[in-house]
Amino acid sequence: MPKEPPVRVPADKLRAIVRDIFAAAGTPAEDAGTVAEALVWANLRGIDSHGVSRVPRYLELFDSGEAKPAAKLRLTRPKPGVILIDADGAPGPVALSRAMREAMAAARETGIAWAGVRGTVHTGAIGYYTSLALSGGMVGIGLVAGIPNMAYHGARGAALATSPISIAIPAERHPPLVLDMATAVMALGRMQQYKAQGKQLPDGAAMTAEGEVTTDPARAVTPMPLGGPKGAGLSLAFELLTSGLMSNPIVTAFHQKTPEGRKHKQNASLIAVDISAFTDPAAFRRTVDETLDTIKNLPRLSAEEEILIPGERGARTYEKRMAEGISVSADVWNSFRKAAEKYGIAAPSA
Amino acid sequence: MPKEPPVRVPADKLRAIVRDIFAAAGTPAEDAGTVAEALVWANLRGIDSHGVSRVPRYLELFDSGEAKPAAKLRLTRPKPGVILIDADGAPGPVALSRAMREAMAAARETGIAWAGVRGTVHTGAIGYYTSLALSGGMVGIGLVAGIPNMAYHGARGAALATSPISIAIPAERHPPLVLDMATAVMALGRMQQYKAQGKQLPDGAAMTAEGEVTTDPARAVTPMPLGGPKGAGLSLAFELLTSGLMSNPIVTAFHQKTPEGRKHKQNASLIAVDISAFTDPAAFRRTVDETLDTIKNLPRLSAEEEILIPGERGARTYEKRMAEGISVSADVWNSFRKAAEKYGIAAPSA
Repeated sequence: MPKEPPVRVPADKLRAIVRDIFAAAGTPAEDAGTVAEALVWANLRGIDSHGVSRVPRYLELFDSGEAKPAAKLRLTRPKPGVILIDADGAPGPVALSRAMREAMAAARETGIAWAGVRGTVHTGAIGYYTSLALSGGMVGIGLVAGIPNMAYHGARGAALATSPISIAIPAERHPPLVLDMATAVMALGRMQQYKAQGKQLPDGAAMTAEGEVTTDPARAVTPMPLGGPKGAGLSLAFELLTSGLMSNPIVTAFHQKTPEGRKHKQNASLIAVDISAFTDPAAFRRTVDETLDTIKNLPRLSAEEEILIPGERGARTYEKRMAEGISVSADVWNSFRKAAEKYGIAAPSA
Repeated sequence: MPKEPPVRVPADKLRAIVRDIFAAAGTPAEDAGTVAEALVWANLRGIDSHGVSRVPRYLELFDSGEAKPAAKLRLTRPKPGVILIDADGAPGPVALSRAMREAMAAARETGIAWAGVRGTVHTGAIGYYTSLALSGGMVGIGLVAGIPNMAYHGARGAALATSPISIAIPAERHPPLVLDMATAVMALGRMQQYKAQGKQLPDGAAMTAEGEVTTDPARAVTPMPLGGPKGAGLSLAFELLTSGLMSNPIVTAFHQKTPEGRKHKQNASLIAVDISAFTDPAAFRRTVDETLDTIKNLPRLSAEEEILIPGERGARTYEKRMAEGISVSADVWNSFRKAAEKYGIAAPSA
């Protein structure tokens, strides 16, 4: 049987499809829109692994009770610069979008604010939330901790998560700098690309199920930390700065091997920094532009390879996909059909 | 001629020597004590490259006018959570210790505070400043940007600095987690160790003076960024979050190749996070202990190699050197003698 071709869908249309599915699953309209916005943003930026392909997984988590479609976020603000959000199992986009908005509102008063999120599921691409800060003339910083899937330096097997950090910084002429990086040498998705292409992995990037270091993509299961102790140390620090500060430890619970400890959950920290507290925001954006010009104009290592700023490729893909639509694989498209059928709503059309 | 042996000096004594030299060079007594404290801390922790061996360089910078022994720090607090410090060319330890103390005082009100430092020189080991936060029951986070000495991914030659990040998190039974890492695969100091031992560098760690990637330690000049675009992206973000926010761009000025742009200078950001704003600090330290227990008890990759937490080796070296004294090379010891002679104070004795 030939493989079914992907379906090309305009971003608006794709957002409406995802929104309608989440609404039908019991998510309040506004929250369903937020989930759709965050997932489709990831596809627009070319991060397909964190986009609408995740929809079936959220629906599974709703069914298993690990996530709640109509979660009630509980917010407190113990100090002017600190917001705590108990996510009550809300999908990541609902909890983290709220967290960044609250952090921005607080940072307008205090200059900097930290919003901690406790007990959410699948945050998606965290560059989305740090990028929200840009619209308010702010810098956004985000950390996420999740279920262990990465090795710790010197240890065998999955120890902690490939916990990402994202930093979003506004520019004027240039696209904003949006760094969004896992603390692993390469994330699971890229390991799978190597596997699909039968390409050997770089040394020190992955371990087998038995915890042996391997370059064989077919046997690779566990990503290894970026730079050994550096990536491992960052991931451990992020676990403590999210799960620790939010009193919801994930790493310890996971290794106790209880059913509760193995349940999917994530914690996050989002920080908003108000540039106007430091300097004139327009002058700051000019400084950023000049710095990015400087970097892009450096002599190239290879004539063919352009020097790129974090987020630059994503900004280009965004423009292209806004114009041309998003290519949705037949598998993902069929998962939308099945969801529509399950919830008794109209089948999606492209 | 046989090489002169190193001199073993108790920490107190070494602090007094460094303090007296800085005081004789015109540094106010309290600030001279602060410089001595920070530099000797680095030696105690085993970070000899950032310890008292730097004394002659500070004295040179005083002589050239790039640094000022009696700088007048100018502080403003534009928002409750933001402190800006114009360092006026003060030695890093003076400006950054003050910055962390001010950030901690502000964080007691707001829960989190960011102190930006503009125009300092040689910060030393930034783990010292983030560790200051621990005594106040806080988490410390620090970023430093300096004169370019590291490559940018895809570019030839020195593009930006090996700008470090440090994160200090308190524990109870365990030593605190103190991560202090450069954004390079390996810092210049370690490249020099490879050279001294005639050992081949790992692939992708360094470039020659001509900007070619090399594994030959004799030809290696420029460190390459950790994980390619990841380390390069972090360093670029740190430049913008320090030099950019503090309106004192280093990377752009450097590449304009003006004498001003090539002068040694550093900017820094220090963040204090008050744990008590999030949760009970004692409960937090227990969570940290349990997480560190979990990591240390993982199956080892090699039977001989212990699993270490960031800062654990440094804490052990600290205990050992507090008991046994610090080994100061003959070169460094002679630099103290010369300084004492220059400023007309008593010669140091061990």
